[in-house]
Amino acid sequence: MVNYKIILRLIGVLLILDGIFMLSSISFSLYYGENDLFPLLISGIGISLIGAVLYLFTRKCNQDIKKREGYIVVSLGWLSMSLFGALPFVIHGAIPSYTDAFFETISGFTTTGASILNNIEELPHGLLFWRSLTQWLGGMGMIVLSLAILPILGIGGMQLFVAEVPGPTKDKIHPRVRETAKRLWGIYVLLTATETLLLIIGGMSFFDAINHAFTTMATGGFSTKQASVAYWQSPFIHYVITMFMFFAGINFSIHYYVMHKNFKVIRKNDELKFYSYLIGFLTIVVSVALILQNYAGIEKSFRDSLFQIVSIITTTGFVTADYEIWGPFFKVLFFLLLFIGGCAGSTGGGVKIVRHLLLLKNSLLELRRLVHPRAIIPVRLNNSSVPQDIMSNILAFFLFYVLVFVAGTIIMSIIGVDIITAMGSVATSLGNVGPAIGSVGPSSNFAHIPDAGKWVLSILMLMGRLELFTILIIFSPAFWKK
Amino acid sequence: MVNYKIILRLIGVLLILDGIFMLSSISFSLYYGENDLFPLLISGIGISLIGAVLYLFTRKCNQDIKKREGYIVVSLGWLSMSLFGALPFVIHGAIPSYTDAFFETISGFTTTGASILNNIEELPHGLLFWRSLTQWLGGMGMIVLSLAILPILGIGGMQLFVAEVPGPTKDKIHPRVRETAKRLWGIYVLLTATETLLLIIGGMSFFDAINHAFTTMATGGFSTKQASVAYWQSPFIHYVITMFMFFAGINFSIHYYVMHKNFKVIRKNDELKFYSYLIGFLTIVVSVALILQNYAGIEKSFRDSLFQIVSIITTTGFVTADYEIWGPFFKVLFFLLLFIGGCAGSTGGGVKIVRHLLLLKNSLLELRRLVHPRAIIPVRLNNSSVPQDIMSNILAFFLFYVLVFVAGTIIMSIIGVDIITAMGSVATSLGNVGPAIGSVGPSSNFAHIPDAGKWVLSILMLMGRLELFTILIIFSPAFWKK
Repeated sequence: MVNYKIILRLIGVLLILDGIFMLSSISFSLYYGENDLFPLLISGIGISLIGAVLYLFTRKCNQDIKKREGYIVVSLGWLSMSLFGALPFVIHGAIPSYTDAFFETISGFTTTGASILNNIEELPHGLLFWRSLTQWLGGMGMIVLSLAILPILGIGGMQLFVAEVPGPTKDKIHPRVRETAKRLWGIYVLLTATETLLLIIGGMSFFDAINHAFTTMATGGFSTKQASVAYWQSPFIHYVITMFMFFAGINFSIHYYVMHKNFKVIRKNDELKFYSYLIGFLTIVVSVALILQNYAGIEKSFRDSLFQIVSIITTTGFVTADYEIWGPFFKVLFFLLLFIGGCAGSTGGGVKIVRHLLLLKNSLLELRRLVHPRAIIPVRLNNSSVPQDIMSNILAFFLFYVLVFVAGTIIMSIIGVDIITAMGSVATSLGNVGPAIGSVGPSSNFAHIPDAGKWVLSILMLMGRLELFTILIIFSPAFWKK
Repeated sequence: MVNYKIILRLIGVLLILDGIFMLSSISFSLYYGENDLFPLLISGIGISLIGAVLYLFTRKCNQDIKKREGYIVVSLGWLSMSLFGALPFVIHGAIPSYTDAFFETISGFTTTGASILNNIEELPHGLLFWRSLTQWLGGMGMIVLSLAILPILGIGGMQLFVAEVPGPTKDKIHPRVRETAKRLWGIYVLLTATETLLLIIGGMSFFDAINHAFTTMATGGFSTKQASVAYWQSPFIHYVITMFMFFAGINFSIHYYVMHKNFKVIRKNDELKFYSYLIGFLTIVVSVALILQNYAGIEKSFRDSLFQIVSIITTTGFVTADYEIWGPFFKVLFFLLLFIGGCAGSTGGGVKIVRHLLLLKNSLLELRRLVHPRAIIPVRLNNSSVPQDIMSNILAFFLFYVLVFVAGTIIMSIIGVDIITAMGSVATSLGNVGPAIGSVGPSSNFAHIPDAGKWVLSILMLMGRLELFTILIIFSPAFWKK
């Protein structure tokens, strides 16, 4: 039997937090004296109350959380925080349509960063802060999810990538989650504070700085400006944001070890190396291509290449230049980059670097296996062999990813979106990136997508954020059998 | 040590055959009294002579053919037959550019059917027949390759799909190839003759009938008309070609068993069932969609849907209607169908039905494995479990397919082709289909693709036709190590 009471209780806790964080946004409404005070206040109180009711009415429940409850809490948690988190936008009227407000909010909590807003600068500061906060909270949730919860649920080989993080690994979720959260959220907060400071030094207002630091560390990509980071011309700001996007795309357990002066972990981590080399290689290719076509001077060509590549690979989605107008090669390249994703255990979405690395290694080994059919040749990562069941899980993950991408593209094209926009919007939603290609490119947004399409893309963002399996498994018959 | 002498000897045999078949095309030059007599005569004699020289000069060689020699002979054989097979078109002047002539010929031998011709009807009959013959020979080669050679080379799990075909399975290639060829070519010839007869009954001239029968059974798709099969209005002709495309897309070992009155094999074959259900399901969906948008009457909507779906799934590429103008959904759908492919052991290309079926089954089982992490749950096909190494090989095949598709798309976009045409042309070349989407759609051709792009697509056709691994393995370091 699924323990529904504990599920409701945990959802209750999440909603209370949802409400409290919403109420914290009021500080900016008060400071700027704007009309988003009431909408944030009433929503925040209301949501907290609903959460409190759920929490109190399930007092006498069995505290046992097994895998099954884990899957459901994670999925429903993300969903319900988005469903309720959309309310202030609708009540205020900044986003009159609930569909739009939900799209914007789930795009926040999943740290996607796809937006339907045509007038970001016109939003009051409290709402803008809440919008950035959804991403920062989503990032927080993701760190715990990928480094503490998913490994226990056995999803996507996550248990492998974080094998070095100490902590209990039994079928009970509570102790591990609390321990990991304490350690890693400290790092998350520290990095966010440092970026805020640097952005202020670079010339941003405190408000813009904290918002961009929030959405950078979450690899979210919401900006307080319609033009995104392109609003600022300062190379310093561009490089600071690039650096922190890069940090946010790294496995947070590596940050943990580095902060404890264990630098060996950097040299030994194949994923981190592959991530760095890939970004380095692509930046050189794109910079050279841009210089050759007289796009700009060397520094600006390099900076724009690096920024856009890091932004898309880490699935942040900030924009300082529109790669769509660079030419057909760049359009194809950046479309493909939507499928890469950050490192496992980072706040980045997508397929993830380590999965690509293992799939690539396995494919190349298959050629060796064909030549030597009787030899057993395992895939190796960080100097140890990867167990067959984890490889099998990663392969299945990749196939589901392709399958969901294909199904999403078909559905979007039935809804009536052109083929490029269909593929781009599905890839960017599933990968939690933000900008895509076609009519949802870096200089555009998702306002014109039909309502049905917005709901489809919202579901895809959630599926992508929860590593597909968390959602898919709930719909599998085996899950519900005794 | 690789036995180069036996490789050259076998290439010699293939070139002799190439020349002899070319000379057979002269019968139509003579009958119609056209100016392609001399080009076919001189090329045919020349190529046979080159083949004879290779054959005679390697008389005293070691007859031992191992896997390594197998890979090289297959790859070089297909390539050299195409390189030489292009000559009559250039010598005659019908295709003045060698690049174009090579593209057309390798598109023939790989049974792709992509064409650079803007004036098919103006070609003399001998050259047209040679063009169709390249496909028919390619189909013959493919049957032997997929049902006799690749299983021995261990490629793509082929050993599994043909487990029921009796014959020696040792590391020596000769006896098995000869035995299988004898049994299956008989069926191929019989089906071709039957289709020719039916097409004549349907109103085609003998010349058009035999050409279309050749290119149907090879799932090639070259037509003697610029408008492809749309040139004929007869529903009878459309249905006959549909039926034989469907036959050509079935594993030829099933034809063998059915002709020996063993019908049980049909009921027991999961791939055949999936292939039939898929075509049935898609035909219903597309027909209904076409009827709803008032495309035509019920019969014509059904016929055009069925024809186009069978044509693309079997990778034939004949056209009776342009799906590109049906709407965005159809464009996406038919683009995706370029990745399906016929059954293993058929003349069809692409990923192949059985691989999709096994990948799908494995992915769904992975959800069950997550719920029951300690259970060992194998994938089952035709009532038996699929060994892990074959699953691993199929997964690697799929990943390489995606990788080559991605790399090809990037290269085509660097060459300067727009993104849709890049994706479409790469998918259709790799899948050996023929028509695609964008500027290489069903009502268009490949004439306008830049020369560099034509060479890239030619390589992709060859890679796709030889199940990727045959080519890739030759470029792997392990292959060349002792």
